[in-house]
Amino acid sequence: MASTQSRAVERMYRTWTQDRRDPPPEPEPRETDDHWGDLTAEPRGVDYTEVEHGLRLAPKALSFEGTALLCLHGGGFVSGSVFTHRKLYGHLAKAVGVPALIAHQRHTPEHPYPAQQEDALAAYAWLVGQGFDRVVLVGDSAGGGLAVTTTLAAPPALPAPVALLLISPWVDMAVSGESFATNAARDGFFYREVVEGLAAMYLAGRDPRDPAINPLYADLAGLPPMYIQVGADETLLDESRMLEKQARDFGVEVRRDVFPEQQHTFQMAAGRAPEADDAIARFASWVRPRLER
Amino acid sequence: MASTQSRAVERMYRTWTQDRRDPPPEPEPRETDDHWGDLTAEPRGVDYTEVEHGLRLAPKALSFEGTALLCLHGGGFVSGSVFTHRKLYGHLAKAVGVPALIAHQRHTPEHPYPAQQEDALAAYAWLVGQGFDRVVLVGDSAGGGLAVTTTLAAPPALPAPVALLLISPWVDMAVSGESFATNAARDGFFYREVVEGLAAMYLAGRDPRDPAINPLYADLAGLPPMYIQVGADETLLDESRMLEKQARDFGVEVRRDVFPEQQHTFQMAAGRAPEADDAIARFASWVRPRLER
Repeated sequence: MASTQSRAVERMYRTWTQDRRDPPPEPEPRETDDHWGDLTAEPRGVDYTEVEHGLRLAPKALSFEGTALLCLHGGGFVSGSVFTHRKLYGHLAKAVGVPALIAHQRHTPEHPYPAQQEDALAAYAWLVGQGFDRVVLVGDSAGGGLAVTTTLAAPPALPAPVALLLISPWVDMAVSGESFATNAARDGFFYREVVEGLAAMYLAGRDPRDPAINPLYADLAGLPPMYIQVGADETLLDESRMLEKQARDFGVEVRRDVFPEQQHTFQMAAGRAPEADDAIARFASWVRPRLER
Repeated sequence: MASTQSRAVERMYRTWTQDRRDPPPEPEPRETDDHWGDLTAEPRGVDYTEVEHGLRLAPKALSFEGTALLCLHGGGFVSGSVFTHRKLYGHLAKAVGVPALIAHQRHTPEHPYPAQQEDALAAYAWLVGQGFDRVVLVGDSAGGGLAVTTTLAAPPALPAPVALLLISPWVDMAVSGESFATNAARDGFFYREVVEGLAAMYLAGRDPRDPAINPLYADLAGLPPMYIQVGADETLLDESRMLEKQARDFGVEVRRDVFPEQQHTFQMAAGRAPEADDAIARFASWVRPRLER
């Protein structure tokens, strides 16, 4: 059974859904962004510095020289920030034992595709310029899909990522997965109508099956090893399966773990929910051997 | 009328009170500490580094050389941490334009008086050793009283603080203020029975009117200028008045502002509630002229 602590993720999602259906009266401000990160416990032992391209996370205990995580936060491209995801990626950086940069990303609808990819590539180049020649690219939700498209779009001058760590990746801008129907009652927030609205703002009229935008239609040959984590109860379950298949068809090494009874980006409950801590430990033990020189 | 945002402080307190009267079933963990800081918005533009004696806060924009805040967090000596108060003191450090150190404090009941004073003095000495010869001593709730007793106990080798900024200071270990009765219905959490329990753990059998512990009975001559902020609805209202009188009687320069309809340490809603932002702006505009060389 899902832990009480991991259910906090669903409770927050249900609150958002309720707020969307029945907006609270003013002057209560809309604070999804600010409160999302409240799900996560303080990692402790991690220092935080705002830099030009995002928030730099420095765990006290480091294991690998010249290696860093580049983290692309979720929020459907319309929300989220380096602050909402500070603690989540603090837990991951600490577990892997390397510094991290959470990239600043511009938001839709003012900045549709490819603004976020430009931001991710600028952050990537900055990180390499800081002496990190081995980068693990990480992303959750919209940031998960962005991690894949950014890898595909990266110029040859940038070293390819060592690995991709994808948390509940949102990749299918066509919103075609069966789990939008089959998990509609279980998922607390990421309903088809919500995702279609987010996709429309990101696409700004572009083809939702453009291979540059939708990895399910892209040539994935040459991608680094990829580890996908997804909750069994989320509407994006099906597209994580399709992404796994597409990657395997192109010869990419893929691991995909489905976490029973878990919500979209349940890892946000890190430091509180055992499922979230287990997920982060799995990421760390999978990626750490790949970082040995 | 109190802003909707500032009422979030009272809502959180009422939740704690409800939890105390009717504890939720396990395995929901008790997380007062972790969630207390959720009241506060991200200050942004402040970097955070864990150091030996606490958490170091470095605003991007600094106004005064060699000057820092030393912040003593609240939590009744039994709870609270550098993390619960990271954002509150981030807002204050940014407003004043100087770095800050939030001191690690041991907790009661394992560590009664004078453990927290020892921790505060060790942090003070560390800060001076880092080249900060002008220290503004800040404290909220239990940390407010601790700021006063620590100043009184500081060895002559340490430079005296330039000023004291006290947020809802808890100073009276005898719990004698009239507002424990008159504000009992308005205050969301800090009831007489709660405060008496906290005091008993801190005192561990000592006299609650010992001048080393209770500033209301101490010789306050020579204290630096002191600015007290208190909520009109809190049970500690009366002892803030008594502290003001005691300080004036000993020739100390004192300002005391009472904020209508506000709760204990309502400044925790900084970045969200206008009353909290106003309070922090008042602290900054009062103390900044005192920091000119």
